[in-house]
Amino acid sequence: MKLGILGGGQLARMLAMAAHPLGIETVFVDPSPQAPARVVGESLVAAYDDRDMLMAMAGRVDIATYEFENVPDEAARALASAVRLLPPPEALRVSQDRVIEKQTLASLGVPTPAFRAVDDRAALSDAVAALGAPCVLKTRRFGYDGKGQAVIRSTDASALDRAWQLVGAGRVPCILEGFVAFDRELSQLAARAASGEVRFYPLVQSQHDRGVLRETIAPAPSTSATIEALARGHVQRLLEHLDYVGVIALELFQIGDALFANEFAPRVHNSGHWTIEGAETSQFENHVRAVCGLPLGSTGALGRSAMLNLLGDVPASADVLAIRGAHLHLYGKSAAPWRKLGHLTLVERSGETDFDARLAQLRALVDASIVAPDA
Amino acid sequence: MKLGILGGGQLARMLAMAAHPLGIETVFVDPSPQAPARVVGESLVAAYDDRDMLMAMAGRVDIATYEFENVPDEAARALASAVRLLPPPEALRVSQDRVIEKQTLASLGVPTPAFRAVDDRAALSDAVAALGAPCVLKTRRFGYDGKGQAVIRSTDASALDRAWQLVGAGRVPCILEGFVAFDRELSQLAARAASGEVRFYPLVQSQHDRGVLRETIAPAPSTSATIEALARGHVQRLLEHLDYVGVIALELFQIGDALFANEFAPRVHNSGHWTIEGAETSQFENHVRAVCGLPLGSTGALGRSAMLNLLGDVPASADVLAIRGAHLHLYGKSAAPWRKLGHLTLVERSGETDFDARLAQLRALVDASIVAPDA
Repeated sequence: MKLGILGGGQLARMLAMAAHPLGIETVFVDPSPQAPARVVGESLVAAYDDRDMLMAMAGRVDIATYEFENVPDEAARALASAVRLLPPPEALRVSQDRVIEKQTLASLGVPTPAFRAVDDRAALSDAVAALGAPCVLKTRRFGYDGKGQAVIRSTDASALDRAWQLVGAGRVPCILEGFVAFDRELSQLAARAASGEVRFYPLVQSQHDRGVLRETIAPAPSTSATIEALARGHVQRLLEHLDYVGVIALELFQIGDALFANEFAPRVHNSGHWTIEGAETSQFENHVRAVCGLPLGSTGALGRSAMLNLLGDVPASADVLAIRGAHLHLYGKSAAPWRKLGHLTLVERSGETDFDARLAQLRALVDASIVAPDA
Repeated sequence: MKLGILGGGQLARMLAMAAHPLGIETVFVDPSPQAPARVVGESLVAAYDDRDMLMAMAGRVDIATYEFENVPDEAARALASAVRLLPPPEALRVSQDRVIEKQTLASLGVPTPAFRAVDDRAALSDAVAALGAPCVLKTRRFGYDGKGQAVIRSTDASALDRAWQLVGAGRVPCILEGFVAFDRELSQLAARAASGEVRFYPLVQSQHDRGVLRETIAPAPSTSATIEALARGHVQRLLEHLDYVGVIALELFQIGDALFANEFAPRVHNSGHWTIEGAETSQFENHVRAVCGLPLGSTGALGRSAMLNLLGDVPASADVLAIRGAHLHLYGKSAAPWRKLGHLTLVERSGETDFDARLAQLRALVDASIVAPDA
């Protein structure tokens, strides 16, 4: 069996490495000849909307999936007309537009932060007047890792003007979202098979820095049964609504016993990287199993895990690997400030007592190597 | 960093998948354009003794290793003259010849079955007279998975003639080995770093069928501290004698509280495949770490594991993956009787009680799919 993947980044690379042991080969479409996945499968170097290349991929695979949600509409439609594309294109359509995404979530009874569509400068003033400051102006489409976002901390016209310029508003449709003073950020991953069977990974706790994931702890510490049930219920309704097949990630804000959905990703997700060593079946393998029509694997955690992103630069491999139980994942990308170049995972194995000490060592290595956007 | 691998079989494939997350890319030399490793690295299609291609590989890698011990002498020497080759070529030289191998082991105080070099038919008669029947006639070189072997069950000249024909003796130097009525077969894997640091995997129990590994249980059940210490001591002396770097496997016969060394493999080994899911660091990752000068990872087991080889044919993936905790590894090879096409691993996680029941299900699937040599 051959699996086509739209995108050849680190998610595609890790999907391919999960696919090979299942006897499933991979074909990628990515515009970069240096895409991280190039070493673990067949690469077609082309723009995502290169219709000829998409058709070429469709012709040589049994099923297709994608590693990012910003697949151009037309490309997804063209591909889906020629080969089965999973998760379903409807999941792409909904997740690509923050307004449609939040409207969909709200219609399913999943609370979201307050929001207003903002199509022009006047609408921004109205929206800020309605939601108050602080609030966040975001592009409706094509945002990721904090890109296309500006926090508005005051209702002054000058603050609005500044945010308006920053996100390039006026040229692209925007959304204003109420600022959520969350206790913490959580992420609920799940896999759904074509049969409708759903398996939930443990709810995890994430920490972002300027819109970029820094660290995930799995399972999320001190989680009440109420919160766990809420998160699973939200994801379950979303999966059923979309008739979803594959792995999904729902990012959530927690305030007390309430959850507010921030956004969902119709794909494997950075907050699930810990599952490679920390769960019985990784998110990558379960995504491949789901889209290829194979039974889902157990999503149980094998212990407490921590996942740290390597941003902008990486520590020396020897320093990382000298720490017992540290697992290194480099993506083969060139360095640039704040770019995700790899991640580290540490899993607490039964009988161990020094997990926190080793995690502190790893954090120190990561902090020393990180290159922030303003550096 | 780039790692060259002589051979592109399943061991090379799994080495490459362990290398990529460490940021290490792989280049293979293999005569087959369909070699299993072709999908996870750069392939150079050439005979192992194609000097030009070996030099081409040497020129584009930082370090080289091999996935099988039957590398032609000249090829290993040519490669080692152009790039650092690990494990050291001396380990290849010793392991390639069953007589030199057993002499070396004996010189290190590692007991072996009784043996005699057999260069002609008269020497075979003398050797059988000395060792008695049953005994095993083997080619000194290029044997693997039971190939180039014949059991001699009677001292009759006709039985000797038959064995003599079977192994192609007369054309190649042979060895006669005393038959060992072992209680069980064990395998001791270890990794040694360039620094001299050694890490031992748990001793495992293996079960062969007509010379081919069928199943490994890790750790080996009911192992005494005496046996464990003996096995580690044997491997430690061998590693030091060879100034070894990388993963090694020593196959052993156990009789009561005694161990007899059958053979060693200067490479990752089938009896270590369980380490992918069953140990903190897999044999593949530790081999890559060792030869690339990185610190070794923990070799601790994460629970009880069973590894079953898929021989000759494979069960339906969906049937395997429907069994909770079953991990499937297919190698992308075409089917042929008794050929190793993949393996399955099951790890007992803490708190589980149905390991044996699930293992029985897996064994039934494997037994139903197996295609033996006489089929």
